[in-house]
Amino acid sequence: MADKIFRVNMTTLTTSVEEVPAAWAGHGGRGLTSTIVAEEVEPTCHPLGKRNKLVIAPGLLSGTVAANSGRLSIGAKSPLTGTIKESNAGGTSAQFLAKAGCKAIIIEGQPTEDKWYSLAVTPAGITITEETKLVGKGNFDVIKSVNAKFESKVGVLSIGQAGEMKMAAANISVQDPDGGLRSSGRGGLGAVMGSKKIKFISIDPQDGTVEIAQPEEFKAANRAFAKALVGHPVSQALGAYGTNVLVNIINESGGLPTKNFTQGQFAGHESISGETMADIITQRGGKVKHNCHPGCVIQCSQVYNDAKGNKLTSGIEYESIWAMGADCCVDNLDQIAEADQIMDDIGIDSIETSVAMGVAMEAGVLEFGDGAGILRILREEIAKGTGLGRIIGNGTGSVGRSFGITRVPVVKNQAIPAYDPRSIKGMGITYATSTQGADHTMGYTIATNILNVGGQLDPLSKEGQVELSRNLQIATAAIDSTGMCLFIAFAALDDETCLPALIDLINARFGIALTGDDVVNLGQYILKTERKFNIAAGFTEADDRLPEFFYDEPLPPHNVVCDFTGEEIDTFWNF
Amino acid sequence: MADKIFRVNMTTLTTSVEEVPAAWAGHGGRGLTSTIVAEEVEPTCHPLGKRNKLVIAPGLLSGTVAANSGRLSIGAKSPLTGTIKESNAGGTSAQFLAKAGCKAIIIEGQPTEDKWYSLAVTPAGITITEETKLVGKGNFDVIKSVNAKFESKVGVLSIGQAGEMKMAAANISVQDPDGGLRSSGRGGLGAVMGSKKIKFISIDPQDGTVEIAQPEEFKAANRAFAKALVGHPVSQALGAYGTNVLVNIINESGGLPTKNFTQGQFAGHESISGETMADIITQRGGKVKHNCHPGCVIQCSQVYNDAKGNKLTSGIEYESIWAMGADCCVDNLDQIAEADQIMDDIGIDSIETSVAMGVAMEAGVLEFGDGAGILRILREEIAKGTGLGRIIGNGTGSVGRSFGITRVPVVKNQAIPAYDPRSIKGMGITYATSTQGADHTMGYTIATNILNVGGQLDPLSKEGQVELSRNLQIATAAIDSTGMCLFIAFAALDDETCLPALIDLINARFGIALTGDDVVNLGQYILKTERKFNIAAGFTEADDRLPEFFYDEPLPPHNVVCDFTGEEIDTFWNF
Repeated sequence: MADKIFRVNMTTLTTSVEEVPAAWAGHGGRGLTSTIVAEEVEPTCHPLGKRNKLVIAPGLLSGTVAANSGRLSIGAKSPLTGTIKESNAGGTSAQFLAKAGCKAIIIEGQPTEDKWYSLAVTPAGITITEETKLVGKGNFDVIKSVNAKFESKVGVLSIGQAGEMKMAAANISVQDPDGGLRSSGRGGLGAVMGSKKIKFISIDPQDGTVEIAQPEEFKAANRAFAKALVGHPVSQALGAYGTNVLVNIINESGGLPTKNFTQGQFAGHESISGETMADIITQRGGKVKHNCHPGCVIQCSQVYNDAKGNKLTSGIEYESIWAMGADCCVDNLDQIAEADQIMDDIGIDSIETSVAMGVAMEAGVLEFGDGAGILRILREEIAKGTGLGRIIGNGTGSVGRSFGITRVPVVKNQAIPAYDPRSIKGMGITYATSTQGADHTMGYTIATNILNVGGQLDPLSKEGQVELSRNLQIATAAIDSTGMCLFIAFAALDDETCLPALIDLINARFGIALTGDDVVNLGQYILKTERKFNIAAGFTEADDRLPEFFYDEPLPPHNVVCDFTGEEIDTFWNF
Repeated sequence: MADKIFRVNMTTLTTSVEEVPAAWAGHGGRGLTSTIVAEEVEPTCHPLGKRNKLVIAPGLLSGTVAANSGRLSIGAKSPLTGTIKESNAGGTSAQFLAKAGCKAIIIEGQPTEDKWYSLAVTPAGITITEETKLVGKGNFDVIKSVNAKFESKVGVLSIGQAGEMKMAAANISVQDPDGGLRSSGRGGLGAVMGSKKIKFISIDPQDGTVEIAQPEEFKAANRAFAKALVGHPVSQALGAYGTNVLVNIINESGGLPTKNFTQGQFAGHESISGETMADIITQRGGKVKHNCHPGCVIQCSQVYNDAKGNKLTSGIEYESIWAMGADCCVDNLDQIAEADQIMDDIGIDSIETSVAMGVAMEAGVLEFGDGAGILRILREEIAKGTGLGRIIGNGTGSVGRSFGITRVPVVKNQAIPAYDPRSIKGMGITYATSTQGADHTMGYTIATNILNVGGQLDPLSKEGQVELSRNLQIATAAIDSTGMCLFIAFAALDDETCLPALIDLINARFGIALTGDDVVNLGQYILKTERKFNIAAGFTEADDRLPEFFYDEPLPPHNVVCDFTGEEIDTFWNF
């Protein structure tokens, strides 16, 4: 069965199943969401209005047994940044969508009545049902209720209260294999889903499967690919400590943004490190290793229990731990895990929200270190949509504007994540030039700046950083199209068998003959397509800049400032 | 005594008196503030940071006896719009500054300590004093306290709580001749003053006077000029009913935005009209006519008493009455007058704040028509800086973003004032193209679209509106440089003796020989200087657009939508 486009019009409450246009056929994941958004969405439209579209696409390899191929891309014009946006997450939905024969879901329009709906995806298409019972509920209630309707496993995408309230930091939650949540976190896509009055989407592939054009070649390529992944030391560290292995590493580098980006090291780093977390998890009978989607061989997720041995949260990432930990000076992992669980339930991005809390602390709303205060604000203000809750729930830039704060770590209004651009200069280029606002996943120069993957490049020197970020952003855009987890990049950068095996997987899946050059061209095409959208939306080089306080305030311990000129940053686009 | 530049550095807490650079010598008012901001402020700087500058300049004729020459221009990069900004107001400060020999005050830098200051201006320059007593106080307390320090009359500029809290709708208040307030309202300049930690500025001209190069010619020109002003019917209507004469006129035209811009006529218009207001004022012993600055021959201000005959507010404008009245559906003039007084005291723009209330009503924060609710929010939320207070105090766009509302009447994040751009199409061009966000005073096409001043142009047809707005915006920029009130424009458009008399006034004041062409060139230079700043700040043609709901929703009673294409709007800049 050839893949189809499943289209939903929320104004007319009608759906259709369409052939895939030839120009979209070679695309998947981010390449497809960005192509469709660029083609069908007016760049200047209001992101929460009827002209925006929400596009959901599995990757080119999703639904196959290829290792680590379970990432789902969701795209739209972002209400947080105003740019084009693709946010991807693990969970089971990418694989189920692909098995249902769905190349992409395009959700357009907006209900004219004040009613909520759910979408049910099967291989036959999509049905729309009015939803009343789950409106106002958190994601965990939604998932539980939706799963109870089905006999077999289904994928679930849902929004919590933050998405219903159209907060610009609202995410879209993606159910994982064990009823936990992964998040399409950045850019407020949950608000776009909320603006279309869709509370959840179920994905039941029934007996659908993905066809493999050359099964034997596919199996062989997958063996080589998985071997390369498993063998890389970073994969192994991620399995042992999760992404939180980075707390000690980034702290040691002096690039761990602390106390709303005033310091590069956090005195309490040991208390929140991956090593400490693994010890706590083990002591309390949680899971140190856990996969966010079937087929993952890295398993950087985990299950974190409370002191009584009950599950507190799962899939808690370095960036979330850093944001509430170092950036807000909270050195208590149990409070961070509890906040993580609440944010999953409300459906709000843990990076954006926690960095916003750091700015709110600078504004005097809370004291730095007040973890209990953060928990209170999450429960009593954000979940309930009070004035303060909306200020914080609309993100870091919103807090800065609301309180007249100038030290606001955002690019294109999106919070800068867990790597200070002054002392890890490659990340500064990625934050500034990314088509999607500050986002570490767009060009993760930590690999080469800090982890010595793909070579070595002094993080404190400007030399070579633009080229590094450019190459990684191009490669990342291509990887984000495959459905592959970005963490395959470590093996791809160091192990010469990895990338050819990935290309072999794609070729065997479709019976085609892509080359390495094709992959680079794909990445470049995606970045240029995204940038073209942004330019038409009104973005200029003036938006490709870091906030001025990074130029003014030297960051301890290295006492370095951002020193890229605008002209240097703009050379990024010389390709 | 030749005029000087008075410069204040709030980082070093030092001041200086400087010669006027040759390139600035021919400028005054808006022409001077925009020239200085464009020359000295980095366009991409944070508007509340140390790189922004607040520039205060009397007009070319301020301090003379020329009729209506008492307007003061204040400029900076706006925290509300991110554009260059000039906001002008009446009051006594322009005349006193000019008499003190001050061509402009430039306030730069930012204190490093968390202390507040005041500035005292005399002909000798400026002194900086730490201020503690008045911090946290409203404008009326400030003015009372400052006046008590001086034996003779002084000018006072001050900020209220909104400016201290750096709210993006905060204004700078300018004392009028009777201890009332006029406001440099638009664009959040009060937040810039607050970011520099200046609570108030006193201006004591001592025995300073303005020299007139050709006194006899000046007197003759002033006679002719004043005669033209007084003789125009619009001047007379403004004297009789204030600017609020417009409620009935604009309602009749179908262009009175009502219930957050859903209708073009307000059922309660009679209750809030200028005619009703004049009756109430007369009954209660207030003043129907009042001048906001000495020498005004139009006298569109008034003193509005409460039912007991005590002064409730003064200088209440059509735009303020419209915004809380029609746009929020409040048909109670006493509530509107009370809100006006509170907004003056807090120091917050009555247009921006009231339009923000209308959007908050659409979001369900209040019911439409709930005037008591507005009063409560002003007193209990905005003045105290609660979460909701900060959302509203940061303006209309802030409310829209915070509550996920798409019907948000702003251009460049500044609230659209009291003339619906769908049924008065010339105003649509002014709002879209103004260098300063939506602002009726930038190119007041109401003159020709509605009042039949300067000809007649059908407000419902696109024909000729771009040219009309262009000509008016050029003329306005020039008028804003003279210190003249914009209301001289009615006479200037209809009476052929008026503009020559104004040019004669300038020539006699300085002993020069300007022509009508020079005035047009000046206006064009100002607009182009301002636009160049905005482009460098990152603005593009995509920002010169009206919100999409004006294109989608026909406005009763004419049931018309905005129908300008982007290309048509952009022809504005063809000069």
